[in-house]
Amino acid sequence: MQAPDALLKNATLATMSDGYGLIERGAVAIRGGRILWAGLEAEAPAEAAGLPARDLGGALVTPGLVDCHTHVVHGGDRAREFEMRLEGASYEEVARAGGGIVSTVRATREASEAELLAQALPRVDALLAEGVTTLEIKSGYGLEREAELRMLRVARAIGRKRAVTVRTSYLGAHAVPPEYRGRSATYLSEVCLPTLEVAAAEGLVDAVDGFCEGIAFQPHEIARVFDAAKALGLPVKLHAEQLSNLGGAALAASRGGLSADHLEWLDDAGVAAMARAGTVAVLLPGAFYTLRETRLPPVAALRAAGVPIAVATDCNPGTSPLTSLLLAMNMACTLFRMTPEEALTGVTRHAARALGLTDRGVIGPGMRADLAIWNVAHPRELAYRIGFNPLLERMVGEDA
Amino acid sequence: MQAPDALLKNATLATMSDGYGLIERGAVAIRGGRILWAGLEAEAPAEAAGLPARDLGGALVTPGLVDCHTHVVHGGDRAREFEMRLEGASYEEVARAGGGIVSTVRATREASEAELLAQALPRVDALLAEGVTTLEIKSGYGLEREAELRMLRVARAIGRKRAVTVRTSYLGAHAVPPEYRGRSATYLSEVCLPTLEVAAAEGLVDAVDGFCEGIAFQPHEIARVFDAAKALGLPVKLHAEQLSNLGGAALAASRGGLSADHLEWLDDAGVAAMARAGTVAVLLPGAFYTLRETRLPPVAALRAAGVPIAVATDCNPGTSPLTSLLLAMNMACTLFRMTPEEALTGVTRHAARALGLTDRGVIGPGMRADLAIWNVAHPRELAYRIGFNPLLERMVGEDA
Ligand SMILES: [Zn+2]
Ligand SMILES: [Zn+2]
Repeated sequence: MQAPDALLKNATLATMSDGYGLIERGAVAIRGGRILWAGLEAEAPAEAAGLPARDLGGALVTPGLVDCHTHVVHGGDRAREFEMRLEGASYEEVARAGGGIVSTVRATREASEAELLAQALPRVDALLAEGVTTLEIKSGYGLEREAELRMLRVARAIGRKRAVTVRTSYLGAHAVPPEYRGRSATYLSEVCLPTLEVAAAEGLVDAVDGFCEGIAFQPHEIARVFDAAKALGLPVKLHAEQLSNLGGAALAASRGGLSADHLEWLDDAGVAAMARAGTVAVLLPGAFYTLRETRLPPVAALRAAGVPIAVATDCNPGTSPLTSLLLAMNMACTLFRMTPEEALTGVTRHAARALGLTDRGVIGPGMRADLAIWNVAHPRELAYRIGFNPLLERMVGEDA
Repeated sequence: MQAPDALLKNATLATMSDGYGLIERGAVAIRGGRILWAGLEAEAPAEAAGLPARDLGGALVTPGLVDCHTHVVHGGDRAREFEMRLEGASYEEVARAGGGIVSTVRATREASEAELLAQALPRVDALLAEGVTTLEIKSGYGLEREAELRMLRVARAIGRKRAVTVRTSYLGAHAVPPEYRGRSATYLSEVCLPTLEVAAAEGLVDAVDGFCEGIAFQPHEIARVFDAAKALGLPVKLHAEQLSNLGGAALAASRGGLSADHLEWLDDAGVAAMARAGTVAVLLPGAFYTLRETRLPPVAALRAAGVPIAVATDCNPGTSPLTSLLLAMNMACTLFRMTPEEALTGVTRHAARALGLTDRGVIGPGMRADLAIWNVAHPRELAYRIGFNPLLERMVGEDA
């Protein structure tokens, strides 16, 4: 698992440095948990050729996958709500039965750190089993100080318990909790912003996120959260334009945001703002599928404007109980008409960029030796199959 | 794997005898590969209580899953075609590049029995890893005598290589091969029907299938195939009403067909005919999803008429490269609005019926001890999660 010093030979490389960046009869040299060299096996330099050789039997090597948008830490599940809706229950009936995000907030508040960790690990393990080596995890189901901090601590614990890099996002502005209903500004002042300061001081926060939507927070409220992030020197990102167009992506872009996520309702002005700022578009087809949405994110416009597009699971109990990044890739192709090459770029190079990470997502000198080795002949097969895992091995490197 | 004589205790049972048929604090007694008794643990009869006890720690026990419609044996894949289409290639361009069903026919004809087996087993193993204990496998990519026989022999070999019951369907009437283009009647006379006789004589055929569609065979041609099946004493089933309404389901029902499959274009007359005949409706959401169809099968009408509804993967390289029956269940709920209970019934009791099997699909006395043991609290979770496999153990019983 931990990548040993080695020369991996007889491999097909999808370096992802420019599209697939395919190299047949390729090799990768690893030293000290970093990639020393990658290229045509026949052209390996002396320092690479001197490393212990390992024959990969023609397998495909890609960068380790990056799931750049998850809510994988949460209490309980929403299976009963899923069933009730399919049995014809109205939203009121589901709410009366304790369903909706409020039920996840309750279950998360009631769970101990150990319980949250125990519930999250099987989901994390499912993601890792498909080659994920970097995982973003959000808070946002606590919505009160201790529960938000607990979620972030569990996220950090996952990074210690498993061979995976965890990047945390503070998502106190995910929803207005029941006890603050109709008083979102007060919730921000009394809970969300003070908790962010505490969490940041504890080193629990890598980025700050929010949910900009009619059912969550307005742009001027998100701006307050972004101001607080800036004061703390933390980068921002945003759930934007999922169910309506409030200009959230442009807001995130104006703050140099790492990413704007969902984006089904993104308009041309939002695309242009993201392109100017270099903000990554993170598409979440699992939520689109589960909610049976019909409005597609503007993939062609994003592509034309040169906005980097990432793909993630959005793993969460309500709108995307999805623990397969390969399936997210297939959905990105089948539902959003992305190409398999764009989908793979979206879970490697562009996903790393969505997390502000410049040391992974491509196979090249100096990068972390985060690699996935696959029993497929061509990288297009990763998005083509549905519910099939061809991973042979996952390797994780080391920080410089 | 092979179910030993035992009393499985401390379990939640979803017997599937009538809906979930849930029994909390349940137990299952197994003797000689069959279910001796199942019920409340506290009410176990003496002959059950005397068996070696095993504590399942509260796990859920369901019947082993039945995937009642697959094309899991085939040569090659269609990943390149998947990619070309997403890159904007027209159907003509795909065809010129050798794509479409013809490419699978070519790859299947070129593959040896050993190659077909080696290619199929990873897909079969993926299905089995999710609790499948009975698997239907069709021919239909050979479309010439030797290649059709080879596919069926490989299907039988899978039943010997793996602990799974394989039921074969002869699908010589899947498509008109290139060398008979425009001469479908001649293909039936010269290849399809004579090969059926040979295959049946070799004991390779459990049922006879066809594809009734404008791009395949007309109802009067399917009737010829069904006549041949009847002469051989073999039950029939049909790919019907997938892309248009040719009355195929009613035709299958009129012959006492085990099932009619796909059914997006099924009309009220077809529903009524199936209800009268007791023909199972096999829904295939993986193909619906992959083809981005918009016309839904008439689930409400089938339900109202009392037609048993099954769900299957349709695992095939072109229109449903799906190797997860759990995901097919989720798609049946999310896309077709079936309930989780209907979806689970659709891969157990009703799927067994679609194969004419009366000794499995429910947990009850005298049934085969084909069981799946799951790390979930409630069976609804099996359809709720996406890309997650909670299987703890698969057991297979024995024929009486
Ligand atoms: Zn999210
Ligand atoms: Zn089929």
